[in-house]
Amino acid sequence: MNQAAYDAARAAFDGKTKPRGSLGRLEELGCRLAGIRGFVPERLEAAVVVAAGDHGVAAEGVSAYPQEVTAQMVANFAAGGAAINILARHAGARLVVVDAGIAVPFEHELVRPVRIGAGTANIAAGPAMTAEQSQLALDAGAALVEELGGMDVIALGEMGIGNTTSASALVASLLDVDPALVCGRGTGLDDEGVARKVDAVRRALAANAGRDPLTSLGGFEIAFLAGVVLACEQRGIAVLLDGFITGAAALAARAASPGAVDVMIASHRSSEPGHRLVLEALGLEPLLDLDLRLGEGSGAALALPLLHASVAILREMATFADAGVTDSGR
Amino acid sequence: MNQAAYDAARAAFDGKTKPRGSLGRLEELGCRLAGIRGFVPERLEAAVVVAAGDHGVAAEGVSAYPQEVTAQMVANFAAGGAAINILARHAGARLVVVDAGIAVPFEHELVRPVRIGAGTANIAAGPAMTAEQSQLALDAGAALVEELGGMDVIALGEMGIGNTTSASALVASLLDVDPALVCGRGTGLDDEGVARKVDAVRRALAANAGRDPLTSLGGFEIAFLAGVVLACEQRGIAVLLDGFITGAAALAARAASPGAVDVMIASHRSSEPGHRLVLEALGLEPLLDLDLRLGEGSGAALALPLLHASVAILREMATFADAGVTDSGR
Repeated sequence: MNQAAYDAARAAFDGKTKPRGSLGRLEELGCRLAGIRGFVPERLEAAVVVAAGDHGVAAEGVSAYPQEVTAQMVANFAAGGAAINILARHAGARLVVVDAGIAVPFEHELVRPVRIGAGTANIAAGPAMTAEQSQLALDAGAALVEELGGMDVIALGEMGIGNTTSASALVASLLDVDPALVCGRGTGLDDEGVARKVDAVRRALAANAGRDPLTSLGGFEIAFLAGVVLACEQRGIAVLLDGFITGAAALAARAASPGAVDVMIASHRSSEPGHRLVLEALGLEPLLDLDLRLGEGSGAALALPLLHASVAILREMATFADAGVTDSGR
Repeated sequence: MNQAAYDAARAAFDGKTKPRGSLGRLEELGCRLAGIRGFVPERLEAAVVVAAGDHGVAAEGVSAYPQEVTAQMVANFAAGGAAINILARHAGARLVVVDAGIAVPFEHELVRPVRIGAGTANIAAGPAMTAEQSQLALDAGAALVEELGGMDVIALGEMGIGNTTSASALVASLLDVDPALVCGRGTGLDDEGVARKVDAVRRALAANAGRDPLTSLGGFEIAFLAGVVLACEQRGIAVLLDGFITGAAALAARAASPGAVDVMIASHRSSEPGHRLVLEALGLEPLLDLDLRLGEGSGAALALPLLHASVAILREMATFADAGVTDSGR
């Protein structure tokens, strides 16, 4: 956080032809972006990074969808037909789709083949991945940030059948809360499905007690996204979180480096119950509250126009002095 | 409301490659837009209409700014330096600035000279305008909608020193609530200023008891915007409300035609206390809640990208059938 840049943005907002503070949270957003970047970008360069991975815990019947949907949706991303394709384009953001480790490879020039493994192991029975795999995923996330270069904001997205279960276990472990408070309906579980999910998370926590939470309970896409966050902290790039799963990745990044929170912006509060706990723990107030529960980075993409608007106001709006408007000083 | 178009949009969302309802309120928004228009527009054509007017009640010391700021801000709109210029451009919307009756004319090719009068009379002492003026303002709003032609959504904005006082009186009258519950800090009043405002509203209600609320308590810009709303209802165009003052215009429109609510979309909940009451009375849940209190249509312009996104999803996103993705049916 560059305090001087933050303060300069604050002063710039106060000089604009409007009552002080009257653009509310949009002003705080602009100040934070300036503080994170160290300057006010001329135009916000944004990318949406959607990482996909499969989860051994899907075998526990914790999703409304079969595992092959992960690869089908990666194909849909590559073909341009998913919600995040439309929303990222609409927000003027570059979309990067990453195969962090889906069960069956889907090769396509638009899919970045990271592939730490062919899906994680079942966390209900043991660790999701090895320490080496976890480190590889973190490093691969950081490498992508390096390669993207010159970004002002990176929005996080994910896809992975079973990954709300992995994220629930990770959040329950990192925040030390009861799995029943964290587990929700995901993509559409009924009450019985939620009960199976809570049970799977309890077994995962028992099976992996004492192990590193991200390595033992996370997913390849979650570890990859945690790596993106940590690299963004290093490079002063804003990270726009999406829903519960990217929130779990953010929590894991914070566990590794508490200062990572300084570059995070919460796009929305999802209808997944654990997301509220994650946002509270991170101390972030989301920009939107639209009952979204899709993932893919869709909520982050929907919030991107607000980030663009805050920067446009700072860059383009007249001051009282420019416009010859009487300033009340309030 | 075209129920068939609404239902068709609902069915279209359900066929898209995502769990049913997982885009939350964005789906309801798309369905409402389809229902209002009778079809899903290829690309949402949007205009922001900012109407300005002066208010005799400004003489009661109810604003943090002197009356000349209304004209100064109209000049700022014409020069392109105000928040709404930047936000409307950013949202891809056409901006129309209307002089509905400011004290001293500001002539400019980009300002539509409606000019019902040189500011309203002081409502604390008697009626704001004559019945004829009120009708002229309503008709002028309708004429603008006619002239704009082919719009899918018209966002409302306003400017007028003293107009939160006029709006407070109008809302207190239309909803029959105590002025103290409605009056807020406007553009930056201190506690004493708010007390003066409450007192002015009480006197306005007493001085105009039994008279038509819009005519006796409203402003030229408020009546003009009510005319815009009524014409949009007639023509099946969505109306995107901004904050408290456009909400007061919407309430006045509803008083004239209850069905007008069907075309209204609430963009945000402002920090002005009366705005919450207005939204509750209209039965509208706002899309954003960002502590905005600027007016000018700024909150409406900030919400426009969500409207665009809902239409883009309906128009461009793949279906389960298109993409070969397994549908869980949930």
